[in-house]
Amino acid sequence: MSTSEHGRHGPAVTMRDVAKVAGVSVATVSHVVNDKPGARIGDDARRRVQEAVIELGYRPNALAKTLSQGTSRFIGLVADAIATTPFAGQIIHGAQDEAWKHGYVLLVANTDGNLAAENEAIAMMLEHQVHGILYSTWFHREIQVPEALHQTDTVLVDCFAEGSGLPAVVPDEVQGGRTATEELLAAGHRRIAFINTTTPSPAQSGRLAGYRAALEAADVAYDESLVFPATPEQEGGYAATSGILDSKATAVFCHNDRVAMGLYDGLREHGLRIPDDIAVMGFDNQDVIAAHLRPPLSTVALPHYELGVAGVRLLLGLEPGPSAGPQLVACPPIRRHSI
Amino acid sequence: MSTSEHGRHGPAVTMRDVAKVAGVSVATVSHVVNDKPGARIGDDARRRVQEAVIELGYRPNALAKTLSQGTSRFIGLVADAIATTPFAGQIIHGAQDEAWKHGYVLLVANTDGNLAAENEAIAMMLEHQVHGILYSTWFHREIQVPEALHQTDTVLVDCFAEGSGLPAVVPDEVQGGRTATEELLAAGHRRIAFINTTTPSPAQSGRLAGYRAALEAADVAYDESLVFPATPEQEGGYAATSGILDSKATAVFCHNDRVAMGLYDGLREHGLRIPDDIAVMGFDNQDVIAAHLRPPLSTVALPHYELGVAGVRLLLGLEPGPSAGPQLVACPPIRRHSI
Repeated sequence: MSTSEHGRHGPAVTMRDVAKVAGVSVATVSHVVNDKPGARIGDDARRRVQEAVIELGYRPNALAKTLSQGTSRFIGLVADAIATTPFAGQIIHGAQDEAWKHGYVLLVANTDGNLAAENEAIAMMLEHQVHGILYSTWFHREIQVPEALHQTDTVLVDCFAEGSGLPAVVPDEVQGGRTATEELLAAGHRRIAFINTTTPSPAQSGRLAGYRAALEAADVAYDESLVFPATPEQEGGYAATSGILDSKATAVFCHNDRVAMGLYDGLREHGLRIPDDIAVMGFDNQDVIAAHLRPPLSTVALPHYELGVAGVRLLLGLEPGPSAGPQLVACPPIRRHSI
Repeated sequence: MSTSEHGRHGPAVTMRDVAKVAGVSVATVSHVVNDKPGARIGDDARRRVQEAVIELGYRPNALAKTLSQGTSRFIGLVADAIATTPFAGQIIHGAQDEAWKHGYVLLVANTDGNLAAENEAIAMMLEHQVHGILYSTWFHREIQVPEALHQTDTVLVDCFAEGSGLPAVVPDEVQGGRTATEELLAAGHRRIAFINTTTPSPAQSGRLAGYRAALEAADVAYDESLVFPATPEQEGGYAATSGILDSKATAVFCHNDRVAMGLYDGLREHGLRIPDDIAVMGFDNQDVIAAHLRPPLSTVALPHYELGVAGVRLLLGLEPGPSAGPQLVACPPIRRHSI
């Protein structure tokens, strides 16, 4: 532990080297480098050590530091599906940017919902004495909390577990659904269809609640026959087309952008123009799709980046968090040309 | 270093606890757990230690182990844009699966092409004594190698640096372009247009070379007027439509799936049916798009997962790697309904 061996290529600069150049003892270098509280180091000695550190390119051994301090500068991120969706990546991105800002490194593990991989990932993170763990899912849902997560500080990101006592940050589905519907109302529509997912989830119930709340606030009666169930992909939106046309709706709020993309295809086949003949609103602001449909899709953004940021801030105690229930992150409207 | 402190919640099992249950000395436990070469431990003692480790749920302190062994079980992955593309995620996924298989944990850092963040990420990885670093880019290109990467073993993934001496794994763009064109030739097409990207890159030159090689092998003369430059997004494919129609091509090989998606929109506006009136071939097999267009898009897959796997295998010395140039990973055809 007396040398700082960083790689296997070329000699490493040691604390002893720094001490020699700075003209102080190794103990003094150690105190300055490790920022030990209570150590009385003169300003001059401190400055000389800092200059020598820069001059020599000395790199303190992060592992030795971790051992002496009890926890590391790691934050673990356990994700069920980083790779199979373009969504989760933005959670990582936000979490990482915020972690870095406070001097932490994000240790990412993708588990693909495999329980064994998940347990192993968490165990490894605990072995590496992470400061805490962000446990995230690629779509907003309630989860069973893995037992091992109780061995460290944990924040749930894009998921929650009622009664677990674990803090959580999730998108505000109700506000998102309300905002999407309000955008259509503001454009003068009154007969607004809603293609909702067939998958039970907070998105399914929350966006519906928001749709109803917006209609109610605008004095438009809720009409159950305007709500169409669909699989939440292009194929579902396409299949909903004839029902939408029969309903005489002048606008459609789609559960997500993929549904809107399928609906675009269906409406086009019937010779309808968007938004002249019918307005379409999406949800997600999905990369690669939303901005590139013809016409570009008006939608509501799922705030994945912000969820990652908020998760880290809760974990590091930079935010108090709500007194009850998950912390809600707003879904802002993204205005393009389909309304 | 004598205790294994894994979290801040609940008492941790120590090496002393294991020694007590196994009826051996702490030194013996340490030798067994750390698998020290040269230590003479009887089979019986070894078995009793292993049983006690399992019974008590003892978790060796990974950091202490790293310090005694010189390198850690970490492999670093530095990526320029995990989050802004659905591509890079699959590189992470493949690298992580392969790393785990051999007992390594992937330490991921997303840098967004920010040089300062990149340098800091690499420095942190070196501090944590990674076994080596995978340096990856979200699209295949030549890079300038950051100086710090020479301090550890490095493999370039989806990028390369001629003359750097660093091993690299990249997609076989030429084979991919040839395969895409061969799929169209096999369906009976002879007048095949190619919408190529305007961005200079190995994909631009490689896919064109593959297109020409396939035509030549099929005795179809190369006609420069059938190659259309376009920005590599939906908008570029859409804008190319009139040129494609004027060219009397019966099939189109698109630089990527996003270009094909835009071309679909353009062809539909002219009342053309795919594949009856004109066949369309993509490239990338991009998640969320390719399988969900109408009709589902025939394409060639960019092997991102396989690139991640191959990178780890090269880094761990499990594959010899090619004697010269980057290791090429094949781009397989994905057959759907647009041909």
